[in-house]
Amino acid sequence: MQKHITVGIIGAGRIGKLHAENITYHVPGVKIKTVSDIYCDSIRDWAHNLGIENVSSDYRDIVNDPDIDAVLICSSTDTHSEFIIKAAKSRKHVFCEKPVDLDVSRIKKVLEEVEKAGIKFQVGFNRRFDHNFKRVHDLVKEGKIGTPHVIKITSRDPEPPPVDYVKVSGGIFLDMTIHDFDMARYLSGSEVTEVFARGAVLVDQSIGDAGDVDTAIVTLKFENGALGVIDNSRKAVYGYDQRVEVFGSEGCITVSNDTPNTAVLSNAEGVTGEKPKYFFLERYKDSYIDEVISFFDAIRTGGETPVTGIDGLKPVIIGLAAKKSLLENRPVKTSEIY
Amino acid sequence: MQKHITVGIIGAGRIGKLHAENITYHVPGVKIKTVSDIYCDSIRDWAHNLGIENVSSDYRDIVNDPDIDAVLICSSTDTHSEFIIKAAKSRKHVFCEKPVDLDVSRIKKVLEEVEKAGIKFQVGFNRRFDHNFKRVHDLVKEGKIGTPHVIKITSRDPEPPPVDYVKVSGGIFLDMTIHDFDMARYLSGSEVTEVFARGAVLVDQSIGDAGDVDTAIVTLKFENGALGVIDNSRKAVYGYDQRVEVFGSEGCITVSNDTPNTAVLSNAEGVTGEKPKYFFLERYKDSYIDEVISFFDAIRTGGETPVTGIDGLKPVIIGLAAKKSLLENRPVKTSEIY
Amino acid sequence: MQKHITVGIIGAGRIGKLHAENITYHVPGVKIKTVSDIYCDSIRDWAHNLGIENVSSDYRDIVNDPDIDAVLICSSTDTHSEFIIKAAKSRKHVFCEKPVDLDVSRIKKVLEEVEKAGIKFQVGFNRRFDHNFKRVHDLVKEGKIGTPHVIKITSRDPEPPPVDYVKVSGGIFLDMTIHDFDMARYLSGSEVTEVFARGAVLVDQSIGDAGDVDTAIVTLKFENGALGVIDNSRKAVYGYDQRVEVFGSEGCITVSNDTPNTAVLSNAEGVTGEKPKYFFLERYKDSYIDEVISFFDAIRTGGETPVTGIDGLKPVIIGLAAKKSLLENRPVKTSEIY
Amino acid sequence: MQKHITVGIIGAGRIGKLHAENITYHVPGVKIKTVSDIYCDSIRDWAHNLGIENVSSDYRDIVNDPDIDAVLICSSTDTHSEFIIKAAKSRKHVFCEKPVDLDVSRIKKVLEEVEKAGIKFQVGFNRRFDHNFKRVHDLVKEGKIGTPHVIKITSRDPEPPPVDYVKVSGGIFLDMTIHDFDMARYLSGSEVTEVFARGAVLVDQSIGDAGDVDTAIVTLKFENGALGVIDNSRKAVYGYDQRVEVFGSEGCITVSNDTPNTAVLSNAEGVTGEKPKYFFLERYKDSYIDEVISFFDAIRTGGETPVTGIDGLKPVIIGLAAKKSLLENRPVKTSEIY
Repeated sequence: MQKHITVGIIGAGRIGKLHAENITYHVPGVKIKTVSDIYCDSIRDWAHNLGIENVSSDYRDIVNDPDIDAVLICSSTDTHSEFIIKAAKSRKHVFCEKPVDLDVSRIKKVLEEVEKAGIKFQVGFNRRFDHNFKRVHDLVKEGKIGTPHVIKITSRDPEPPPVDYVKVSGGIFLDMTIHDFDMARYLSGSEVTEVFARGAVLVDQSIGDAGDVDTAIVTLKFENGALGVIDNSRKAVYGYDQRVEVFGSEGCITVSNDTPNTAVLSNAEGVTGEKPKYFFLERYKDSYIDEVISFFDAIRTGGETPVTGIDGLKPVIIGLAAKKSLLENRPVKTSEIY
Repeated sequence: MQKHITVGIIGAGRIGKLHAENITYHVPGVKIKTVSDIYCDSIRDWAHNLGIENVSSDYRDIVNDPDIDAVLICSSTDTHSEFIIKAAKSRKHVFCEKPVDLDVSRIKKVLEEVEKAGIKFQVGFNRRFDHNFKRVHDLVKEGKIGTPHVIKITSRDPEPPPVDYVKVSGGIFLDMTIHDFDMARYLSGSEVTEVFARGAVLVDQSIGDAGDVDTAIVTLKFENGALGVIDNSRKAVYGYDQRVEVFGSEGCITVSNDTPNTAVLSNAEGVTGEKPKYFFLERYKDSYIDEVISFFDAIRTGGETPVTGIDGLKPVIIGLAAKKSLLENRPVKTSEIY
Repeated sequence: MQKHITVGIIGAGRIGKLHAENITYHVPGVKIKTVSDIYCDSIRDWAHNLGIENVSSDYRDIVNDPDIDAVLICSSTDTHSEFIIKAAKSRKHVFCEKPVDLDVSRIKKVLEEVEKAGIKFQVGFNRRFDHNFKRVHDLVKEGKIGTPHVIKITSRDPEPPPVDYVKVSGGIFLDMTIHDFDMARYLSGSEVTEVFARGAVLVDQSIGDAGDVDTAIVTLKFENGALGVIDNSRKAVYGYDQRVEVFGSEGCITVSNDTPNTAVLSNAEGVTGEKPKYFFLERYKDSYIDEVISFFDAIRTGGETPVTGIDGLKPVIIGLAAKKSLLENRPVKTSEIY
Repeated sequence: MQKHITVGIIGAGRIGKLHAENITYHVPGVKIKTVSDIYCDSIRDWAHNLGIENVSSDYRDIVNDPDIDAVLICSSTDTHSEFIIKAAKSRKHVFCEKPVDLDVSRIKKVLEEVEKAGIKFQVGFNRRFDHNFKRVHDLVKEGKIGTPHVIKITSRDPEPPPVDYVKVSGGIFLDMTIHDFDMARYLSGSEVTEVFARGAVLVDQSIGDAGDVDTAIVTLKFENGALGVIDNSRKAVYGYDQRVEVFGSEGCITVSNDTPNTAVLSNAEGVTGEKPKYFFLERYKDSYIDEVISFFDAIRTGGETPVTGIDGLKPVIIGLAAKKSLLENRPVKTSEIY
């Protein structure tokens, strides 16, 4: 029978709660012992209903608890590095939400500590576990399109985040496009060497006032010779638009959006199908479950996690290169970022 | 160089004019010498613009003209048999619009005369030349779906014909479904042995008052063991709905509607594509051209026409069986009709 | 907080196990106390892993247990009536798999007892809870297509059941098409008054030898004037084909198959998407969860179950009418069946 | 009745012949009097069959013929400027294939002469007349997507041109992408201000040896604030891939490829539809007809041609900017090109 795993969750915002619920309802053999959050009073009822024993306002109640095998870090980005290092030093396996950190040298420090501790470490790039994107990845890897030539990613949110969030998020490239940078690496099987970013403020002037853009096109050059392009918008009125295309010497694979159902209504106005699933919680529901299952599998089997420390580092580098590119209006090599 | 062919067209209503224009603009090596119509004054300008030499109110100016090699019969159904026989006796090749006649014994008589005369004879089941249906036929014939098990045909008009037309048309099964009966034979490669028809008046009560139905579902049994079903409506608000599906032991082929373009608009209301092409003139534009080209090819090469006399007879039999089935509310064998 | 419900499950074959797992993992506030099965030894480990307290070979350990509020009957069809009546007499709410029984008078007796006992009773027509079909139903009900004229249902299995199962199943119309008969009532919002069935043995001769057909087309007449058609096959090589279409005065709604992902590969061979989800366990995964949630909701709220006793009776009547129609090769009124 | 127009065609390669055939078969009221080609012997039979009176090896037999109203220039690019100027001086309306010239100052000179002569002048950007792209344009113009934010164009050929052609073509941006630059202007309704091009040799090393690339991604900045991206490949194994997407504040319009038919085969391997129409002659068949009809309409009505001299100039500027951008690996403003 499979080894029982005891976990603690640091940070019970939207994503921390999601992981807790997924583990409770969908992951047999894993028990959440403690959830910590700086606003821990507000989560007591929720935790009780899920059957979670302890709620704490102090993350140390998790990293210092000898019963706990693994920690999920879902707190704000600026706390990630510290918490990972503390957990690693306590020999706890770590699953950390993206981005690991906005600072490259701090991430490198984190990776060293993780390495030293010999723990399992996984970064929350959940989209790798999405049924559509995983299928593209697998088909590319099986050689179904020959050599990849062009990677195209469209990623549009249904609505912009609050401008207060924009201000601390590191900007669109480190908050939103970072998923697409990870996807680009995942689908191409290659590293990005150069980035050119175009950006515009077309959706929400307050985002522009905060020093960010809300619309962007980023082109990529990969080590293996392929080219890539990502287009982002903070607001698609028809919902969450998440598509990719990989074109190669022997063919092309595309995935379109998931919809709530396949109903199509034909009437005097046209032939109308459903809009995409609204946002990431609906669209990536299953991928959030599968990513934590993979993390716990790696702990049990001793194998590598499917999204490693390097996978946490590289997209931040690409994101910083994109930021620099936009600022300086020139292509920026990823080797310029350190 | 290909043999020049001189033709006459009897009947210059909508379909006669269509054939005349198609031959003029799209069929090299064929010259329309004469068009006859009982209302011949009304077509003089039209004929002149097309460069047609003669206009007559008497079809005999065509069948008796030794210059004319072939005749297209596009007059009203009740005149078809007489005109075909006259043309055959004059050794003119004949293309006749569907249905050949509403009376089985008259059609048999026609086929005898055609046989005796040794002329080429083709019936206007244009849909066999449609790019979609032809593709289904070819794939079935190539064995791509193995043995056919189920043939499904959906055929819905965008709006009902005038009730005066309904009264002389022979009813929905001989006017509208007859195309689908031909399609069923064409796609299955087998003969229909038994018919069960359901009908209802749901679109237009005046059609019911004229003794016809406007909505129908007809099931078929084929000689080769396959089953078939056709569903018809006289009014689909979204336009002309023309789809088929052939299901077999090794797969299934479907064709969907043609649209004017592939544009899809995603907005807050949904994801909306174009309606089907409006009606048969748009939808089957190319098939009308290809059917006459095939007719003239058969004349030139001496080969068989692609839609023969038997192909003109059988759908009428099936249509009459459907009519009888609806009336008597029981399955009717095609062998009961003669 | 919601009322806790204690349940017993009678019959732990494939579908009984499915319900047990769904309740355990996806339905908060419901506890499975006992599972009974005549082969109860074989399910001990499975039950233990799910945290189910008791396993028994005697269904009376469930119907006589005063702790148990509700019973799920998942045993073989011939036991349904007896178990429902016993459970009803013990004032336990009953969820029963389809079909309730193959005998109309026994079903009527069951409904009487259910009525008398005042319990909640739900029949396992899970497809009503499918995201696609539910959407069609809702759009029809909202009047989006005006008055329904034609209901079309395609239902094809990926492979035929073992012939031993065919022999006790009551035949294709009571085992397989029964779901489609329920769907026809659900989508049309009307009762079937007359049935004409065509059938053929095209897939597996041993099914024919057992007195059944494996391919069928059934046409329906509804009380509200609409027409319907169902086509079935026991074997579609491309997987589980589950589509419906409702056509009406103001439009048409179709749903196509669900696929495991939206990947499309374009290469020299064509443009290829995924096959439908393989079979009912994959395709209707969520609908099985939602149907039991609805059942427990009805118990808690005291409201009506969404699939009532009449909904259990009517499809059996239609199925028996279809059987008679096929045998006698004539349309059969549902009023002939009692 | 409409004014009869007499035309001459200079250059009878593939595209010159195509225009001649289209005019003969599909454009009433226009007569081709003379076709000139330096290899005029090879086209005599072809011209005769089309009923064209004169064949000449000297284009002056066209520009000096007082009978001729309009000239179609379909000769090699390096001759365009001279022929246009000669035709303009003879007061003949000019339709010229793209690109007008590879040299900006020569194009400007041409436009001056055209202006001075007061003739109608149209450039052969036929894709503006394509049913799909025209529909996108019209919907954008009608405001259906609000303000355009992102223009995306995918344009892939089924196979690379001969390397000898590549050498004289001006390179991928002036030969192939030039159509996409025109499309970008057409769909956005705005001018391109800055270009950044990425290119790679992934298809055919001999193209690289000739100093060109075969795979490219070009990002654009528009005057109205929108962003654009074009991706090109010289070889898509599945055929001619021609798609666009315009995303804006109120929605998104996409068009997919045209296929020869709508047949979809579902079998054990998957669900497979047709590949796109093979190449530009099939895909843009109707657009070639419609562009010349528009040209003759402008002559008749005295209105503006739908693709003017400026429309001929701008894409060349963008193409040269793209070339410079690729060479210098930096974004290049279109104002840098003159």
